[in-house]
Amino acid sequence: MTNELDFEGWTCPAPLRSYPNVILGHGGGGKLSAELVEHLFVPAFRNDKLEALGDAAVFSLNGSRLAMSTDSFVVRPLFFPGGNIGDLAVNGTVNDISMSGARPLYLSAGFIIEEGLPMQTLAQIVDSMAAAAAKAGVTLITGDTKVVDKGHGDGVYINTSGIGLIPDGLEIGPDRARPGDVVILNGTIGDHGMAIMSVREGLAFESPIVSDTAALNGLIATMIQACPQIHVLRDPTRGGVASSLNEIAHSSGVGIILDEKKIPVHQSVHSACELLGMDPIYVANEGKLLAIVPAEQAETVTAVMRGHELGQDTAVIGQVVAEYPGLLVAKTGIGGTRVIPMQIGEQLPRIC
Amino acid sequence: MTNELDFEGWTCPAPLRSYPNVILGHGGGGKLSAELVEHLFVPAFRNDKLEALGDAAVFSLNGSRLAMSTDSFVVRPLFFPGGNIGDLAVNGTVNDISMSGARPLYLSAGFIIEEGLPMQTLAQIVDSMAAAAAKAGVTLITGDTKVVDKGHGDGVYINTSGIGLIPDGLEIGPDRARPGDVVILNGTIGDHGMAIMSVREGLAFESPIVSDTAALNGLIATMIQACPQIHVLRDPTRGGVASSLNEIAHSSGVGIILDEKKIPVHQSVHSACELLGMDPIYVANEGKLLAIVPAEQAETVTAVMRGHELGQDTAVIGQVVAEYPGLLVAKTGIGGTRVIPMQIGEQLPRIC
Repeated sequence: MTNELDFEGWTCPAPLRSYPNVILGHGGGGKLSAELVEHLFVPAFRNDKLEALGDAAVFSLNGSRLAMSTDSFVVRPLFFPGGNIGDLAVNGTVNDISMSGARPLYLSAGFIIEEGLPMQTLAQIVDSMAAAAAKAGVTLITGDTKVVDKGHGDGVYINTSGIGLIPDGLEIGPDRARPGDVVILNGTIGDHGMAIMSVREGLAFESPIVSDTAALNGLIATMIQACPQIHVLRDPTRGGVASSLNEIAHSSGVGIILDEKKIPVHQSVHSACELLGMDPIYVANEGKLLAIVPAEQAETVTAVMRGHELGQDTAVIGQVVAEYPGLLVAKTGIGGTRVIPMQIGEQLPRIC
Repeated sequence: MTNELDFEGWTCPAPLRSYPNVILGHGGGGKLSAELVEHLFVPAFRNDKLEALGDAAVFSLNGSRLAMSTDSFVVRPLFFPGGNIGDLAVNGTVNDISMSGARPLYLSAGFIIEEGLPMQTLAQIVDSMAAAAAKAGVTLITGDTKVVDKGHGDGVYINTSGIGLIPDGLEIGPDRARPGDVVILNGTIGDHGMAIMSVREGLAFESPIVSDTAALNGLIATMIQACPQIHVLRDPTRGGVASSLNEIAHSSGVGIILDEKKIPVHQSVHSACELLGMDPIYVANEGKLLAIVPAEQAETVTAVMRGHELGQDTAVIGQVVAEYPGLLVAKTGIGGTRVIPMQIGEQLPRIC
């Protein structure tokens, strides 16, 4: 056991070097998060399943292919338009498992409760978790409760972990995007992040912004049935669509050209983003997925998606290309290209 | 989704009724924790796997029997004699999985980091996790990092969840203790809890108290090989030996007679407990197990346990009887019996 970080062994740019302490941005799902994973967690635990860096880890057991995922939820406030930390925690892990193509089956829940949380609040959150689990068709089979002293938590933090079974024949992963593929999105972006922000900032719009939190496993099952050749699935949560597509471009060693005009955004989300100086493509979603599929399958996939309640606003928003490997780019109005970088730190702290 | 607790539907005694808010004791692993599970979590999520209330949940998948467990760690301080929150988090979940008889295979890790945690501290903890995982022979395959603002955490909280494979033919569970069985313990009790307390209280003893944190899967594999008929395995963590045996007595509908004099306790732990007014049988352990086996197997099991580095002080500490169903009792010096109740609340907050 070494007690010192080996700063020398790190690759350039060595970002942790510049951060002697953890900052909020390290939990933001952007570049700082990725660097923490790349330079601290992966070197410590090094193994191929972890290093695949999917939303879920995939492993084989007695001939079955399983997916496992974990996610801690620290969203503030606990209740927001469209949901609360409870259904968010269930849907989040259901979605992470589903992004491997797996059918999510079983969840665990770990509660870290701050002393003084009203029992009624806890019951309401647990009730929402149970309803979300029932709706997604998963079973919560084990749990744990810890209580921390007042001032050392924030009401309740919830970790959910889960297990799913990957149907035979599927090969879905963030490293499988290929030039010629298209990028499909199942609806409007930014709803979850801006629902949270509108509560925090006390913003009121004509049509209130509601979180899109939802379990995507049903939609994905439909998509896989129509097109088992899906290459990549990813839910653009923290860091938004821009960060997820950057990660895929990086993992697959391809370029992704984004057609920003095609991305559906609610008017109220657009207004809120303008007001707060944010770009919706960096804002968190909790009921959205990016699917990367061979171009010849695009029509089939978008058709079944539009027929599903969670995919009515499905749009093709980009192409995978051999140029610009590792980069996400957009065409500018005057015919040039502009790189859309990964978010660096934390645009919206504690969004999930 | 109901937004109100149904107080009417609760069975007597309805303990949550008396607690409008969550208190530290609800996380103590004693009676309050059990009541929270029984009256709030189980009714919400009701299913046979959860209701088995084992340290791990057991389920079948494509013909394999798997065990899944989750645990959040909020120990204070993060570093203590004999370990830190990192190895504790790995060993804790490895042990919970192992108590079902499963061979633990894969773990996840979810970090909730408080803004400002020195990167060096995080690296040291992660390093200990990696070392503990390597020693236990498990692989950490997926993770998640969240950062909360200063004053809403306590350095770092870690959730670990995990999956194990149960060998064919094993039937181990908290409801399987039978009259005639004996209760075996693999060594001294109270070391973990009193190691933490001695740091918190600034106590110094001639021989310092060191946490017993250790992965028990190796010891259990040896025991199972020698005696596949083990009925119950349980690690007496929060709430100690007394609470674990109470839970087993309750689940199995049997009485357990404890022979307190046979329980090994380090002299320094004994002294610390006296000083602080605590009873070691309620103090948390992190490298101990209780095994309940048919009397005719006791000699075989204790022999292999004593041959293992984590079982040198193995002792038979009790018998399972048909009398006193649901109770843990001790023989008094004058030949009577005395009930040893479950711990009510929290003797040692934030012990794991």
